[in-house]
Amino acid sequence: MPDLWQDAMDHAVTLARKAGEIVRDALQNDLKIMCKSSSVDLVTKTDQNVEQLIITSVKEKFPGHSFIGEESVAAGEPCVLTENPTWIVDPVDGTTNFVHGYPFVAISIGFAVNKMLEFGVVYSCIEDKMYTARKGKGAFCNGQPLQVSDQKEINQSIIATEFGSNRDPDAVDKIFSSMRKILCLPVHGIRGVGSAAINMCLVASGCVEAYYEIGIHCWDVAAAAVIVSEAGGVLMDVEGGPMDLMSRRVLAANNNIIAERIIKEIEAFSAVRDDEPVDPIK
Amino acid sequence: MPDLWQDAMDHAVTLARKAGEIVRDALQNDLKIMCKSSSVDLVTKTDQNVEQLIITSVKEKFPGHSFIGEESVAAGEPCVLTENPTWIVDPVDGTTNFVHGYPFVAISIGFAVNKMLEFGVVYSCIEDKMYTARKGKGAFCNGQPLQVSDQKEINQSIIATEFGSNRDPDAVDKIFSSMRKILCLPVHGIRGVGSAAINMCLVASGCVEAYYEIGIHCWDVAAAAVIVSEAGGVLMDVEGGPMDLMSRRVLAANNNIIAERIIKEIEAFSAVRDDEPVDPIK
Repeated sequence: MPDLWQDAMDHAVTLARKAGEIVRDALQNDLKIMCKSSSVDLVTKTDQNVEQLIITSVKEKFPGHSFIGEESVAAGEPCVLTENPTWIVDPVDGTTNFVHGYPFVAISIGFAVNKMLEFGVVYSCIEDKMYTARKGKGAFCNGQPLQVSDQKEINQSIIATEFGSNRDPDAVDKIFSSMRKILCLPVHGIRGVGSAAINMCLVASGCVEAYYEIGIHCWDVAAAAVIVSEAGGVLMDVEGGPMDLMSRRVLAANNNIIAERIIKEIEAFSAVRDDEPVDPIK
Repeated sequence: MPDLWQDAMDHAVTLARKAGEIVRDALQNDLKIMCKSSSVDLVTKTDQNVEQLIITSVKEKFPGHSFIGEESVAAGEPCVLTENPTWIVDPVDGTTNFVHGYPFVAISIGFAVNKMLEFGVVYSCIEDKMYTARKGKGAFCNGQPLQVSDQKEINQSIIATEFGSNRDPDAVDKIFSSMRKILCLPVHGIRGVGSAAINMCLVASGCVEAYYEIGIHCWDVAAAAVIVSEAGGVLMDVEGGPMDLMSRRVLAANNNIIAERIIKEIEAFSAVRDDEPVDPIK
């Protein structure tokens, strides 16, 4: 059984690298952009091409496996995690960055069995950084082991977060209020590269102490969650307690001390769950 | 005369590359950090080593030239731009990033004659990107020509800015208020890599449409100002009108349309000028 998941993980790395080539190629050309829910939430032909490449290849090699992907869900496929081996894929994490050529774009491939994450692959393809982690086997970037920061003082920390794509005034109020409270703890700084997966890999790399966000999707964080955890970090809900992959909320930190300190400052709110049943009338 | 400045520029590139090696080497080792004005405003031994390297080499090669450098000014040297050929240097732009290993750290070398900027060199040393520009000769990154974005729609734009190191509540109010108004124009996103010089080089590269900040220093922006300008961009004060290098305020944009639109949303405030005479009693 373990060999099978190693096989799957090796395949994920191969697919991520191939997908990265497609993304880099697309960046050389003009992008044909279609509008999705708002001007902030962009999706490109590349997004769909990459997801199709990954689905087709996975279905061929692992015919019994399930699949949750950003573009498939957008097209009406269910977003439910079962016991079945499941690939959780964001073909292009950081789509806004991609559209602008802002140099943080990742292919994110997570893999869960019995609803537990087994491995994660995040390929930051413009930087050419391949982040990988398998449960119990450590986390790596281009083969080098990763370790979270050992910082315990919040006022010596950098925190990553994003403004996100939500422009609802109540949500924006809470996003700004939380950021301000955290900034004035004080912390060394607040950063955000515009990709949830890469922000989490920066936690795993020890460059930032923590990352939190409300509004992300399971495919943004599934792979990186394994990477953070295997680099020695912790994953939680933004109000504390265990991370719920389908809740659209995540807090990744180097340790519990930093995590708990940030939780006190976050003004949490809810987002429609990824696994919320869709009203068939709509 | 033009040949002399080309000679100076070639020397600046050589020095920036040498300085980048020192910074990258230092990142491999533990950093010995000293506190400056606050926990956010860090300075490291590397900062001083790099500035000393640059000063020594410039004084030897161009004995008549003047020098404005972050560390020299911190040590009490005057920060006044005269008609004399003047090197304006930030040895490590993005010191907070540097201390955390966050991968955006730049050596910034600007050069002015008769108070006009003649060339700029910004070396983003972890990424190994050498940005260069000379007045009237175009802007380049690793030898490839740079061009700002041709975007004219603010709601299709990404804006870069920073929370900065100011924790004064009135300033923080204005920083957050401006960001919120800009976010809700809406724009595609707000980004910030934690280095003024690199944010400006991202404007020059067309990855972001504009960058603004209050609280930066002349050495953070002198070099990058030439790069933005030579890539086809514009430089202004955050309330409009020409940029004043000593005013601690900057707005760099791809064009006047985007610049003017952002200016409407920025709640400006003043910072103590870089060339403010220092009270000798203090």
